[in-house]
Amino acid sequence: MDDLRFVLHDMLQVEDLCALDRYKDYDKANFDILLDSTKDYADKVIYPSFKEMDEQPARYEDGKIIVHPVVGEMMKSAGENGSIGAFFDYEDGGMQLPHVVYSALSHITQSANNSLPGYPGLTTGAAHLIVSFGSQELKDKYVPNMLTGKWAGTMCLTEPQAGSSLSDITTSATPNEDGSYQVKGQKIFISGGDHEYSDNFVHLVLTRIDGAPAGTKGISLMVVPKFRIKEDGSLEPNDVITAGDFQKMGQRGYCTTHLVFGENDGCQGWLVGEANRGLKYMFQMMNGARIDVGLMGASTATAAYHASLQYAKERPQGRRIQNSGAKDVEQEQATIINHPDVRRMLLLQRAVTEGSIALLMQASMYHDMALYGPEEERTRYHNLLELLTPIAKTYPAEMGRTSINNGLQILGGYGFCTDFPLEQYYRDIRIMSLYEGTTGIQSLDLLGRKVVMKNGEAMRQLVAEFKESISAASNYDDLKPYAAQFKAASKELQATIMHLLNYAMQGQYERFIADANIFMEHMSTVVLAWQWLQLATTAKTALVTGNKTYSTEFYEGKIHTMRYFYKYELPKTAAFKTILMHEESLTIPEESKVAFA
Amino acid sequence: MDDLRFVLHDMLQVEDLCALDRYKDYDKANFDILLDSTKDYADKVIYPSFKEMDEQPARYEDGKIIVHPVVGEMMKSAGENGSIGAFFDYEDGGMQLPHVVYSALSHITQSANNSLPGYPGLTTGAAHLIVSFGSQELKDKYVPNMLTGKWAGTMCLTEPQAGSSLSDITTSATPNEDGSYQVKGQKIFISGGDHEYSDNFVHLVLTRIDGAPAGTKGISLMVVPKFRIKEDGSLEPNDVITAGDFQKMGQRGYCTTHLVFGENDGCQGWLVGEANRGLKYMFQMMNGARIDVGLMGASTATAAYHASLQYAKERPQGRRIQNSGAKDVEQEQATIINHPDVRRMLLLQRAVTEGSIALLMQASMYHDMALYGPEEERTRYHNLLELLTPIAKTYPAEMGRTSINNGLQILGGYGFCTDFPLEQYYRDIRIMSLYEGTTGIQSLDLLGRKVVMKNGEAMRQLVAEFKESISAASNYDDLKPYAAQFKAASKELQATIMHLLNYAMQGQYERFIADANIFMEHMSTVVLAWQWLQLATTAKTALVTGNKTYSTEFYEGKIHTMRYFYKYELPKTAAFKTILMHEESLTIPEESKVAFA
Repeated sequence: MDDLRFVLHDMLQVEDLCALDRYKDYDKANFDILLDSTKDYADKVIYPSFKEMDEQPARYEDGKIIVHPVVGEMMKSAGENGSIGAFFDYEDGGMQLPHVVYSALSHITQSANNSLPGYPGLTTGAAHLIVSFGSQELKDKYVPNMLTGKWAGTMCLTEPQAGSSLSDITTSATPNEDGSYQVKGQKIFISGGDHEYSDNFVHLVLTRIDGAPAGTKGISLMVVPKFRIKEDGSLEPNDVITAGDFQKMGQRGYCTTHLVFGENDGCQGWLVGEANRGLKYMFQMMNGARIDVGLMGASTATAAYHASLQYAKERPQGRRIQNSGAKDVEQEQATIINHPDVRRMLLLQRAVTEGSIALLMQASMYHDMALYGPEEERTRYHNLLELLTPIAKTYPAEMGRTSINNGLQILGGYGFCTDFPLEQYYRDIRIMSLYEGTTGIQSLDLLGRKVVMKNGEAMRQLVAEFKESISAASNYDDLKPYAAQFKAASKELQATIMHLLNYAMQGQYERFIADANIFMEHMSTVVLAWQWLQLATTAKTALVTGNKTYSTEFYEGKIHTMRYFYKYELPKTAAFKTILMHEESLTIPEESKVAFA
Repeated sequence: MDDLRFVLHDMLQVEDLCALDRYKDYDKANFDILLDSTKDYADKVIYPSFKEMDEQPARYEDGKIIVHPVVGEMMKSAGENGSIGAFFDYEDGGMQLPHVVYSALSHITQSANNSLPGYPGLTTGAAHLIVSFGSQELKDKYVPNMLTGKWAGTMCLTEPQAGSSLSDITTSATPNEDGSYQVKGQKIFISGGDHEYSDNFVHLVLTRIDGAPAGTKGISLMVVPKFRIKEDGSLEPNDVITAGDFQKMGQRGYCTTHLVFGENDGCQGWLVGEANRGLKYMFQMMNGARIDVGLMGASTATAAYHASLQYAKERPQGRRIQNSGAKDVEQEQATIINHPDVRRMLLLQRAVTEGSIALLMQASMYHDMALYGPEEERTRYHNLLELLTPIAKTYPAEMGRTSINNGLQILGGYGFCTDFPLEQYYRDIRIMSLYEGTTGIQSLDLLGRKVVMKNGEAMRQLVAEFKESISAASNYDDLKPYAAQFKAASKELQATIMHLLNYAMQGQYERFIADANIFMEHMSTVVLAWQWLQLATTAKTALVTGNKTYSTEFYEGKIHTMRYFYKYELPKTAAFKTILMHEESLTIPEESKVAFA
């Protein structure tokens, strides 16, 4: 909690948001009360179901999906405390809470149990789509019951024959005379798609209206409820059949359903916004969902870190190696936190998880500023958010997995056993590299769209942010070497981008994009180094000014972890650069036919 | 299979072993018959139980361990076909099969189902300990029934309070008047420790005889059977109680038992070899077991590679990006193997798995040469085997995990679902970094013992091997750049070692060893680059001489994969070197107190 508060209050100074008109009803104390009450709820209700939901996975029985009863409790309390519509406008039934605070609350609940907060979370996303792009009638009909947690929302994109390739979705929508549509098709991998604890499910479905153009330009977004609302307000079935639940390696408590729409030609849908603009609308939700998946990854890894830290502090085993190289077997065993290799694995986890949380909170704050900040700065914040979103989704997923892998390793054989929670965290986090666009898709988005967007404007604005951080860090002699190291890394990154752009400009677009995944590793390592420079500068400022909220060790621990990142993680960029600058191209099909002959 | 044969016959020329007196009854054709019949058995019996053993995990019920019935079948057929004692001397009931061929057969069975071959495998290890160090009486009493698969063997090292720290084991052995010992203590994590398909279990147990010195110098090795053999040959219980079975994330079909010896003071054990030399004996078995764990890792990753390759060839999704940067949605979807990022993930898997198998086979061949090669070369081969063992155990475990992670990613969301085998491979392989000495322990062994052993003699001999491979590769113009890159990497590795040795010589032993794990990554990457140089040279030779067993594409594919390794993997050594040469030390307890205050 202190780590989170440090990011919010000390590094980002989120209370500055309260000066904005939209957030004028809040102050720092309000934010802290929300954080504390959420922590309390997470400890009492959410965490206790963490292992149970894994042991009693969501499953399909007799046409129904069975989930853990805590899902009902969570939806109810999320409805009661207003968190489902937390960041919505007052007039839409929301609390106008800043996105960054909403993200902080999500971090707390997801750390407690990463399988549970998705149920209300997707309801938030679905309701927000209707609020943002739907007609007043759709809003009035669906949103109130969603915000109270009575009804659940989902997003239905994936089809069996078209996973990441949304161009190829085929779920059809045929206009009815009353303005609604007949919907027909199958959707898979629908998180929270059905269970007994919501009276209705409001599916937001990507469809193709008869005669629509091919590809993503012909996709429309529809509200397709499980039960239609009759004139008198009662519900009637809408021919949405639950066909199964995918059994997964992790997040087993979070149902992943297979839905069939209109098998009996009785499924009605209602268009959200304009026809053929569905993907654009969905991407508003998707961008939020990507930040949320990054948060889920970082939160799962944070929980794993604390579990492995506790074990390391309690478990006696072996002895420290003396400087003679000998071990004194007459000595008592040391707790394993005294072994340098264990400390390295703990520091790695701190570096990844705290750096990821800082990045995610920063991105969320950019979100607030892009929407409600000073008019003239909104575009800049929007650009920064767009550029950082694929990184904020991917780094916590990929390096969060590495982080948990190290946490598990600290427990030795016990880490592999179900008596300890590490193996569940290890399984759970693996989905984060797949949800809401795989790492490959995020990497194409980063290099192929975001880095080059508006002729590189977003990238230039990010580099300007880098420079500010370098200059702030350079105020402290202790931090100067790290500021210099970061500056060099930032320059190398830009040189790598220029090198890659040459391929695009020479018409070798496939080659330009071929190693996007390595580029993602490169750029995200630099971005995390930036976060750590900011965290260390913030800590150093508190130490130097004496304006300390926490202990001296707390701040020194931040600086130490920054040093870890700069010693162990940042040097990897040298390898990424070498790979990206390498003259051989080995993965274009024509060039590598022999490898899979 | 072709990949394996290429390593055995083309790269290592294992038939040269048949010139040695011990292996004179074999020829290349014999080896191939064994490979083929094992493949046939693996396909028919071992692979079909792969998923079943995961779905019906080994478990503890009413004092008994329930395992899949295929365990009985496997033990029986391993007894019948002689594979349990395959590499033993004829006079001990063995087949005098070369270790390298035995390893190749293990690779085949473990690729089919990594949870199953351990049952006979540990019986081999236990029987071999008795054969090597036990009295004739022990041999006569126990070994014949083990080699026929009637009885099973285990190795019992770990105790609850002493995981990796064998100095601290407390299982006691009190001398009886008849020369046997009363054994009392608990052992955990005993693979294959109990089930209904073996009539007896011959546990090889590390104990401490009353009054023995503290630490590892007071450890003795005992045979402690589940059932004692009476004068008339019948069996009677020996007070070995099965107290539980650990439930694990992966390898769920492979039981992991908790055994209690002598709870009712009725447990007898018999000393193997001399008192207080138990750890030395156990390490003979342990070294073999480490190679075997490496093999299990490489084999699991090999199976995962083939599953993901098949998927990538069959699954249509998306379209290739055109060089204009556009996508033509009117085009049919491409199979995903046409996406460069998917090819990269496939090549990564080839590079890791084929490189690992080459290393493991080479290490096994060194084993043969160390025991039965020309007298004057045995020490050199022994040194090389000792030096490479921690790498041959660790690289396939760690990078095999990365490899499978990429395989899973190729399947997208399906990779996370239990309908496809990738998620099981992903769970199964995680134990390899823990079995038989964690990666941390292997790394301490590599840097703290093996690199410095005999004043660096083994390391010098390895570098001499490197030089031979560089010179062989340099015969081909195409390979010269890679030979040069490898030469530079080898020099850097040596420079890093010299740098680290300075700490040891200055009395900073803890610092010398603190980043052993990073050193393991560094050195193993260089060692794999060496394997790939050899593989590519072998392939190139076949292409140039026209002496080809396989298609031209086969050989070109090897060279292409080598290029992948040299572009994408070998450059990582630059980062490892930077970390190891870094002037800051951050993980010694005194230096990093603040991080975990």
